[in-house]
Amino acid sequence: MTDSKTKSNAKDSKQAKLPAKNNFSEWYHELLITAEIIDNRYPVKGMCVWFPFGFAIRKNVYSIIRELLDPDHQETQFPLLIPENEFMKEAQHIKGFEDEVYWVTRGGTAPLEVNLALRPTSETAIYPMFKLWIRSHADLPLRIYQIVNTFRYETKHTRPLIRLREITSFKEAHTVHATWEEAAEQVEVAIKRYSEFYHRLALPFLVSRRPSWDKFPGADYTTAIDVIMPDGRTLQVGTAHHLGSTFAKTYEITYEAENGEQKLVSQTCYGISERCIAALLSVHGDEKGLVLPWEVAPVQVAIVPILLGDKEKVLSVCRELQEKLGAARMRVKLDTSDERPGAKFYKWEMKGVPIRLEVGPRDIEKGVVTLARRDGAKKAVPMVALVEAINQEAQELQLVLYGRAKKFNEGRVKEVGSIEEARSQTEAGVALVPWCGEVDCGHQLEDQVGANMLGEPQYQIFSEAACAVCGKKSTVRTYMARQY
Amino acid sequence: MTDSKTKSNAKDSKQAKLPAKNNFSEWYHELLITAEIIDNRYPVKGMCVWFPFGFAIRKNVYSIIRELLDPDHQETQFPLLIPENEFMKEAQHIKGFEDEVYWVTRGGTAPLEVNLALRPTSETAIYPMFKLWIRSHADLPLRIYQIVNTFRYETKHTRPLIRLREITSFKEAHTVHATWEEAAEQVEVAIKRYSEFYHRLALPFLVSRRPSWDKFPGADYTTAIDVIMPDGRTLQVGTAHHLGSTFAKTYEITYEAENGEQKLVSQTCYGISERCIAALLSVHGDEKGLVLPWEVAPVQVAIVPILLGDKEKVLSVCRELQEKLGAARMRVKLDTSDERPGAKFYKWEMKGVPIRLEVGPRDIEKGVVTLARRDGAKKAVPMVALVEAINQEAQELQLVLYGRAKKFNEGRVKEVGSIEEARSQTEAGVALVPWCGEVDCGHQLEDQVGANMLGEPQYQIFSEAACAVCGKKSTVRTYMARQY
Repeated sequence: MTDSKTKSNAKDSKQAKLPAKNNFSEWYHELLITAEIIDNRYPVKGMCVWFPFGFAIRKNVYSIIRELLDPDHQETQFPLLIPENEFMKEAQHIKGFEDEVYWVTRGGTAPLEVNLALRPTSETAIYPMFKLWIRSHADLPLRIYQIVNTFRYETKHTRPLIRLREITSFKEAHTVHATWEEAAEQVEVAIKRYSEFYHRLALPFLVSRRPSWDKFPGADYTTAIDVIMPDGRTLQVGTAHHLGSTFAKTYEITYEAENGEQKLVSQTCYGISERCIAALLSVHGDEKGLVLPWEVAPVQVAIVPILLGDKEKVLSVCRELQEKLGAARMRVKLDTSDERPGAKFYKWEMKGVPIRLEVGPRDIEKGVVTLARRDGAKKAVPMVALVEAINQEAQELQLVLYGRAKKFNEGRVKEVGSIEEARSQTEAGVALVPWCGEVDCGHQLEDQVGANMLGEPQYQIFSEAACAVCGKKSTVRTYMARQY
Repeated sequence: MTDSKTKSNAKDSKQAKLPAKNNFSEWYHELLITAEIIDNRYPVKGMCVWFPFGFAIRKNVYSIIRELLDPDHQETQFPLLIPENEFMKEAQHIKGFEDEVYWVTRGGTAPLEVNLALRPTSETAIYPMFKLWIRSHADLPLRIYQIVNTFRYETKHTRPLIRLREITSFKEAHTVHATWEEAAEQVEVAIKRYSEFYHRLALPFLVSRRPSWDKFPGADYTTAIDVIMPDGRTLQVGTAHHLGSTFAKTYEITYEAENGEQKLVSQTCYGISERCIAALLSVHGDEKGLVLPWEVAPVQVAIVPILLGDKEKVLSVCRELQEKLGAARMRVKLDTSDERPGAKFYKWEMKGVPIRLEVGPRDIEKGVVTLARRDGAKKAVPMVALVEAINQEAQELQLVLYGRAKKFNEGRVKEVGSIEEARSQTEAGVALVPWCGEVDCGHQLEDQVGANMLGEPQYQIFSEAACAVCGKKSTVRTYMARQY
């Protein structure tokens, strides 16, 4: 929206304080509308409109994903609609999705001959084509991805960016390999890229191997990334699935090995949706609004002229600064609207602008500008070294955001020994629970704790402890949490 | 696809000559698969898969559109699914689309309470939100756009990129204004931006005002851009519609004017789809494959080492050149595959690479490289001035492509005086026909000529001539053509 739009949609900026963040759900909904991320008033439940400002954040966020994948993945696009017969081929997969698929049954005024599913995910759209594309070992590995809209007929309570019926920005990667081991390595690569991605968003996260009953329908195993939200519930913000040869069998995807033998391929797929943006906004935001890391902020620097004394002089200095920062490839906004400086401060805070510059006659006299960081730090900076100073401050802000989030994250994960402790810990955080690894005990854990098992933490080693259910000694642990 | 993928999918590159271009339909279909633009083997008619190479072209093309719109439009995204009651509100609009809408009627295993239309275009999704967004004159003008998939249940023969059931890349802009006149000006702005866009693709085009019976359903008038395809039929590649207050009335979009009065807004919308890529590939391509303008080529420069004599030396020079050009922000590919140089030449010609560099021991001795342009021009260029030379050649290639296309275009448009002449001219081109402007005569023209009326040419003035039907003197002309 333009500034004028902000006036109509948002509350008056001077009153634009959000509900307390410990009232997370209310805070979150208010934030999305007041900061103009998502308009939730579209007349279909669970389907939302991206405001231009929200869309600009999304664009920046997804360009990081592209940057991380493009060196060895190729971007493509497959159709949205999947014919019923293809969709119904893989039995485990159907079982996982049949209750939440939207079906197109009519074209114009007549019924279709074959019903068409709106993709909930694209395995069944893509893999029949992989059968045509892959002939020999020279075609492998194959790594593609697409960023598309997908659909789930959610019967649970929907929530903007978190639980949607139209997921507008599903990045799904699909890879094909000659062996199971290479596919397993690819799952590790995927998790590594996702880790880098979340690190750039200054978001700490947990990595765990989902329990067998919670893996992707049709997968050998699923590794997942979760972010702890402000209320202590976890949000699954990325998954990587080893598909083994399950789909390869169903869709007959084979290759000719070097020795001339026809072999089934091994596959992986991994995905991230706009939940990454839900996590980004929720973890960093505060009662004044968004707090955006430098790299993804649509406006990185807001210049607010303090129009006292020689107003023309102040404005002309501001314009020079704007030009200078623009030339240094920063996204700058000079706010020349009629509002008073205080109102402008509130407005740009709401929009999460990492750095605000205040420029008044006294600053100009001294050859400085006042630089205010979104985390509250404030200092005078010499104009001649402004670009360097801003870059420096942007880096420091990144560290502050990550540090804060890390501290919060660590404060919400606790190793526990018993069901009771786990129950209490998962009220507002994540419990790390000893588990013998048996499915039975796993189900009992979930039932008795009243929370979900996220699964075994990855890249960590634990000492022996007694399974919280059966008491058997084990080095296995599982994260447990209430999940979004 | 990777190079290896090319081997499996495309024909062997040495044989990769396409059918003669005067057999346009066959040439076009072969081109799309051999150059790896679109895979037409997806199991739903009219829905296609973008190969990675085709997708890369699309990305470059659409980034030009974004660049042209972003200065005064904001990118957004609205939901795909439109509830039946909203969709059915605007009577003229429904009439235009009801036969070609796909309907979602089922979620999971149960029927939906309200059927959902897959957007054929998004007026009925967007305008109920505009009603919420717009309150006062300060909110106007509002200019947004989105690039999304849209759906048409086409009963006519489908054709990749040209007539699709899933249009994967519909750029639709929607603007809102205080007055009818401002909206009319916006239509002109839209046509101007589109003109710039097609100019950057080196594509000449015709601009005409569609006859009243062929305007967008619900519009006051429609201005359209057509490209003449190699077989002389025209392809509508852009439209801009003045919507007047038709939708404003239906969706109650009003604003408070400065004098406090509530007024209906005036609206426009304008769109471009992947047809722009169909035109791009068709007009410039030849029997050796794609011919891509520099700006949109996924690979701008292909370096082919001629591995004679000191092979290591040749390769190391090639690598240096690759780095140098990469540093100059060119998209470069050094082809170190096992194929012979001739096969590599064919391959990169098929992919439309604007500039090929051949680097052999003799070139190195002389301090030059051999530069071959996709239009056939070839010369030795000193290595020290390579970046400048390539930039120069890229500009010249652009002029050559535009010049060629312009010549073709002009050769296919002819002013005629009679029905017979129009009939003969529209067999393989566009006829400019005198017309009194009456609807009746227009319909008769279409019937008797056996071609469509594109409408009145814009930005041109004509002398008086006799209407080809009724003989009445008129300064009006209309383009007529067989349309895709």
